[in-house]
Amino acid sequence: MHKKRKIGYLGPEGTFTQQAAEAVFQDRGSARFQMYGTIQECLSAIKNKTLDYAVVPIENSIGGSIRVTLDGLVHELNAPIQGEIQLPISYELLANDGQVNNASYTMIYGHPQALKQCDYYLSVYYKNTRREATESSAMAAQIVAEKPSRCALALGNRLTRHIYDLTAIDRQMENNQNNTTRFIILGNEAIPLSSEKIKSTMVVTFPGNDLMVLQNVLGVLKALSIQPLKIESIPTKRELGEYVFIIDVNTTAQKTAYNQAINDIQVLHCNVRDLGSYPWVTLDESGVRHVNQ
Amino acid sequence: MHKKRKIGYLGPEGTFTQQAAEAVFQDRGSARFQMYGTIQECLSAIKNKTLDYAVVPIENSIGGSIRVTLDGLVHELNAPIQGEIQLPISYELLANDGQVNNASYTMIYGHPQALKQCDYYLSVYYKNTRREATESSAMAAQIVAEKPSRCALALGNRLTRHIYDLTAIDRQMENNQNNTTRFIILGNEAIPLSSEKIKSTMVVTFPGNDLMVLQNVLGVLKALSIQPLKIESIPTKRELGEYVFIIDVNTTAQKTAYNQAINDIQVLHCNVRDLGSYPWVTLDESGVRHVNQ
Repeated sequence: MHKKRKIGYLGPEGTFTQQAAEAVFQDRGSARFQMYGTIQECLSAIKNKTLDYAVVPIENSIGGSIRVTLDGLVHELNAPIQGEIQLPISYELLANDGQVNNASYTMIYGHPQALKQCDYYLSVYYKNTRREATESSAMAAQIVAEKPSRCALALGNRLTRHIYDLTAIDRQMENNQNNTTRFIILGNEAIPLSSEKIKSTMVVTFPGNDLMVLQNVLGVLKALSIQPLKIESIPTKRELGEYVFIIDVNTTAQKTAYNQAINDIQVLHCNVRDLGSYPWVTLDESGVRHVNQ
Repeated sequence: MHKKRKIGYLGPEGTFTQQAAEAVFQDRGSARFQMYGTIQECLSAIKNKTLDYAVVPIENSIGGSIRVTLDGLVHELNAPIQGEIQLPISYELLANDGQVNNASYTMIYGHPQALKQCDYYLSVYYKNTRREATESSAMAAQIVAEKPSRCALALGNRLTRHIYDLTAIDRQMENNQNNTTRFIILGNEAIPLSSEKIKSTMVVTFPGNDLMVLQNVLGVLKALSIQPLKIESIPTKRELGEYVFIIDVNTTAQKTAYNQAINDIQVLHCNVRDLGSYPWVTLDESGVRHVNQ
């Protein structure tokens, strides 16, 4: 029998990262899932080869890059990126079935980020309802589910609604509706993620840490018709003012050109590390893939 | 009588930000200091004109950029940058005078970041001493100072040592000795910071959010012999994959060229906002300025 692949992700049960992980490894029969309390622990597990794959968030459209993930990619890990999932971050206001028509809820539980991202909605529609922060959206849902007689609500999501058998009384209550998170899948083997959209990521340092060399690096990409999608700098950690660049590029139709680009950038005396070329997909809120958008 | 300038900084008493603020506004007689519990509150106060100046950290050599400060600069504030202080982040192991020759300390108090940054040293020299996290380095020093009979130590710094009248039994215990933080001073008027080193910061967005335009922007700088010191991207918060760039450049001898650069970058159909040209200095651990290095 084929050995089950072990997949780690940022927990607890019901996180958006779990949604991303399950969308990729949909055939759960062939996978064993392992939750981690922090991104750092999940990255350490893939580094120590305790896992076949790690699924972690790397960027949110509002909050920006997730530093601990970038630090791991640049300073610690060797496993390449095998895929990317983009997932809209959308909350649901969850209640017990018996409470859905209640007019006076006494409490709303939610993760601090969820409470913050929905605070305009809550201040309009639940002005007099107390709010209490929980460690996760899953915990908010659990508290509500465990005491069905209490008039309480939870800011959860689709997955926590299913897990705790609650009902959504409202959806899409975020201040900013364009809230999307990118998740990456790290591992040494390709994954069953089919998409016509391919992205590649390289880590580049410039000779003498001269940032002007970025102009030449972009010149190489332009000459090969490779479009940069993200250009991010993070500290080398050696000296203030010394940076490593992480550059995502669109290589959907440029696999050969990408190899040429790495070569040409090395000719500029840059240090280049290829983190892989990988398919990426966008999911909608219900977890359905939208390939080839 | 001249009205006292009101200067806000990230507190509590004894922070590295306070060290930076006091180094700039050394003549305390002409300044009134106000501590804030979070960077966000301090930035809001300068935005609402409650303050004349705000002093906040913007980047650490190991942890990277401080997102809340960048977000404030790009998305919220209008006050330009008037100066920059670079301060080495160096901890001191503090004890009460009567305890400096004690061989068996029972507890070390420190901010979680301080405990983490010194954990290699602590695991070698204070292997059997318990560690307890405090909300700030100042609080660690205060706990030790208030109970002189207890055999406890605090991870503090020069300023907390002075404030709580403690003695340093060791210094420079960080895992990584190149730990430096940059602080910026925001305000509408120039500050008494003399330095021959001048830096300028611009916020740039590219037409159609096409990152390839960064090549042309760098081309403008190169043509005018303006060296980029930092190139950082942060989300526009509108759509995933749309970025604003914050570019620091060396304009020590290029004030006129910098104005030309802004003009030439606008010709590329970029949106450019100038956050100011300002002197910057490096302090040593004792707070002494090293100008014109």
